[in-house]
Amino acid sequence: MEPVTQPPKHRVVIVGGGFGGLYAAQSLGRADVDVTLIDKRNFHLFQPLLYQVATGTLSPADISSPLRSILSRQKNARVLMEEVTDIDPQAQHVITSRGEIPYDTLIVATGVSHHYFGNDQWKDTAPGLKTVEDAIEMRRRIFLAFEAAEKETDPEKRKALLTFVVVGGGPTGVELAGAIAELANNTLKHDFRSIDTTEAQILLVEGLDRVLPPYPANLSVKAAESLTKLGVTVRTQTKVTQIDGETVTLEYNDESETISAKTILWAAGVKASGAGRVISDRTGASLDRVGRVMVDADLSVPGHPNIFVIGDLAHCADPTGKPYPGVAPVAMQEGKYVAKLVKARMENRSLPAFTYKEFGSLAVIGKNAAVANLGGVHLSGFIAWFIWIVAHIYFLIEFNNKLVVMIQWVWSYITRARGARIITGTVAASVETPPVRPRQEEPLKV
Amino acid sequence: MEPVTQPPKHRVVIVGGGFGGLYAAQSLGRADVDVTLIDKRNFHLFQPLLYQVATGTLSPADISSPLRSILSRQKNARVLMEEVTDIDPQAQHVITSRGEIPYDTLIVATGVSHHYFGNDQWKDTAPGLKTVEDAIEMRRRIFLAFEAAEKETDPEKRKALLTFVVVGGGPTGVELAGAIAELANNTLKHDFRSIDTTEAQILLVEGLDRVLPPYPANLSVKAAESLTKLGVTVRTQTKVTQIDGETVTLEYNDESETISAKTILWAAGVKASGAGRVISDRTGASLDRVGRVMVDADLSVPGHPNIFVIGDLAHCADPTGKPYPGVAPVAMQEGKYVAKLVKARMENRSLPAFTYKEFGSLAVIGKNAAVANLGGVHLSGFIAWFIWIVAHIYFLIEFNNKLVVMIQWVWSYITRARGARIITGTVAASVETPPVRPRQEEPLKV
Repeated sequence: MEPVTQPPKHRVVIVGGGFGGLYAAQSLGRADVDVTLIDKRNFHLFQPLLYQVATGTLSPADISSPLRSILSRQKNARVLMEEVTDIDPQAQHVITSRGEIPYDTLIVATGVSHHYFGNDQWKDTAPGLKTVEDAIEMRRRIFLAFEAAEKETDPEKRKALLTFVVVGGGPTGVELAGAIAELANNTLKHDFRSIDTTEAQILLVEGLDRVLPPYPANLSVKAAESLTKLGVTVRTQTKVTQIDGETVTLEYNDESETISAKTILWAAGVKASGAGRVISDRTGASLDRVGRVMVDADLSVPGHPNIFVIGDLAHCADPTGKPYPGVAPVAMQEGKYVAKLVKARMENRSLPAFTYKEFGSLAVIGKNAAVANLGGVHLSGFIAWFIWIVAHIYFLIEFNNKLVVMIQWVWSYITRARGARIITGTVAASVETPPVRPRQEEPLKV
Repeated sequence: MEPVTQPPKHRVVIVGGGFGGLYAAQSLGRADVDVTLIDKRNFHLFQPLLYQVATGTLSPADISSPLRSILSRQKNARVLMEEVTDIDPQAQHVITSRGEIPYDTLIVATGVSHHYFGNDQWKDTAPGLKTVEDAIEMRRRIFLAFEAAEKETDPEKRKALLTFVVVGGGPTGVELAGAIAELANNTLKHDFRSIDTTEAQILLVEGLDRVLPPYPANLSVKAAESLTKLGVTVRTQTKVTQIDGETVTLEYNDESETISAKTILWAAGVKASGAGRVISDRTGASLDRVGRVMVDADLSVPGHPNIFVIGDLAHCADPTGKPYPGVAPVAMQEGKYVAKLVKARMENRSLPAFTYKEFGSLAVIGKNAAVANLGGVHLSGFIAWFIWIVAHIYFLIEFNNKLVVMIQWVWSYITRARGARIITGTVAASVETPPVRPRQEEPLKV
């Protein structure tokens, strides 16, 4: 029998097991609270390396850690694999398909998804990169394009199969374009007999006047130079006006150009996850242009001091009024801050407003090629690339992931091979066996 | 311009990039022939370790090697990712969706798929384990069952969710049952808050009177002992008569028993791939009970000395008339033998009939637990397990795969963690984003 004298513990419910939610949960490890972390997936995904899954260097599990195993020894935390469909700030509970989960403090950290700027019909033709399934689909398309080109005899069709268009010149677009160029020029060079993979064209299309727009201008120049050296055609001030599965139409200086290209990858924009709309509906909070929740200086929702929004889903401005970027370090620091605030409040203390301590930003282009802005120090080339490697290994959650990723990288570095370039998820029908159908139904929904 | 004086090379077409087809292709590396290896997948799969993908220790790419990269430097070989739909022995070509590919020698090595003994309706409820997609589906079901049990409040339903039935007591069934028992008793032990994973029931059902029927009887006893020690309930002389998604009905000594179980895994039987039927139709070759092609002593199809069937698809009898088992070493040796025979024939030499040199057989049950029959020497426990580890690492094709698999194993051995226990392939719908649909269509079919 439980001792009846003990008062019920303060219940913290965290929705989303990305960087923000996970760091919040872990930072509450020693607090006298009950933590419930709810995620619809059973693992934390290290999204900054997802492009390496999409391009065949790493496996999904190399950059994923089961949430349960991360929080296994944190006795005040439990994990629920569940989908939150609504929140009720008056009753103080979140609503899932299986019922209500009460909270005293709610932390919402469900992140963002792709944004097609009103062209949702492009979604199937130009997949984005946010989930493991997205990455496997991209990988499938990239490697299938080379396979199809090897069999194609029509030179026009072959050229379209060997043309890859990456839409969006932010870090993800730059990383994808660089990785595909290395695939074509190095990894696959000796593997085909009918095609010359080095003839593949990789276009990186950016609407603004330079790649990596949030970076200092000189680093954008360096990045564009590195991409060009790798064989990527960088097209800035260029907009995509049409995508139809066979061609892409680009617009530059009011002039239109249509290119035959079979593989289009979307790295152009994000919008807040649906939770933003739910929070706005239930609390009256404002949303910004991409659906992020406008939060107070302590990351709480205006008028609801016990509801916090953190990570990519939050629009939190720095003292100059500029919103913090949607990157992992911001989410981590926000998660830690909210955990600290919850603990402070339990002791009737207050905390100063959240501020993001930026250590720097890093974007990788390819082997020995990256750019880094570390507190005003601008680096590029090998040294930036090396810092990128060390930083990403450091932040990978589990020890065996670090080791495996390091080995894959050392191996790729030496041999230029990519061990994970397998095409899965769809099987050409065999003579008798029907194609393996990934099951859509949820046989375990009980 | 090509020199017109050179005679056309002998064309060897190999269908299937498993152990048989791949070893045949590689053994022809220095021969003055043109090798075309056709497979509908772009990778060789190390099937003996597939159960470790299904149970969350390894990733698919850890046990897969791109066929192109394996044969990259073999200049006389090309790889086609293509599906063979028919063969024409008169015209000497194979038929694919994109046209005909002529051969002088044809080697068919397309293996086997699951066999439900006339109960094909069980396929969706009780998935088998032959492809990467099968393994991901099994992994999804196993780990989702624990997640669903954690949320279930009805004790009966919870029990059904924690009941795992493995059908078939051969090596795959023994390996699966052992691995699930280790998952429940060790890996997941501290990860849940509402359920005790060690209460999970794992049943291994075998129709014959012992597990591992092809092994010496004393090793079957050892294996059953190891399984029981791990917490697996071994049910021999027991038949599965019904599977409906909620329950499984077992028959033992004419008595029926129905068990509530949500997760049923099929490891009971195989049948030849559809290519067997095609070969039979086109050449008049006989098929055995499970559809394997009855081949001559040199592995050729009777009456068609230039068509060979090797690996699991071939029914090749030893001198006593007993067919060789469907295991990797047989396929490897058959692949090498046919390559040698092709070369001998080009020099107008002949070869003695194929004989399988058996070095031994190994089956693993769990940590430090395996059985081995090495040329009549029967081993079990740690020593058999250690030999199993070394043999499997040795035969993994690529160096980086060996290294990564070794690290994952050392890590699992020490921590009992399983890094690849991620649930992928289906996403619970979020508030706004539709579920990621694995694309069924082939956008690249051109």
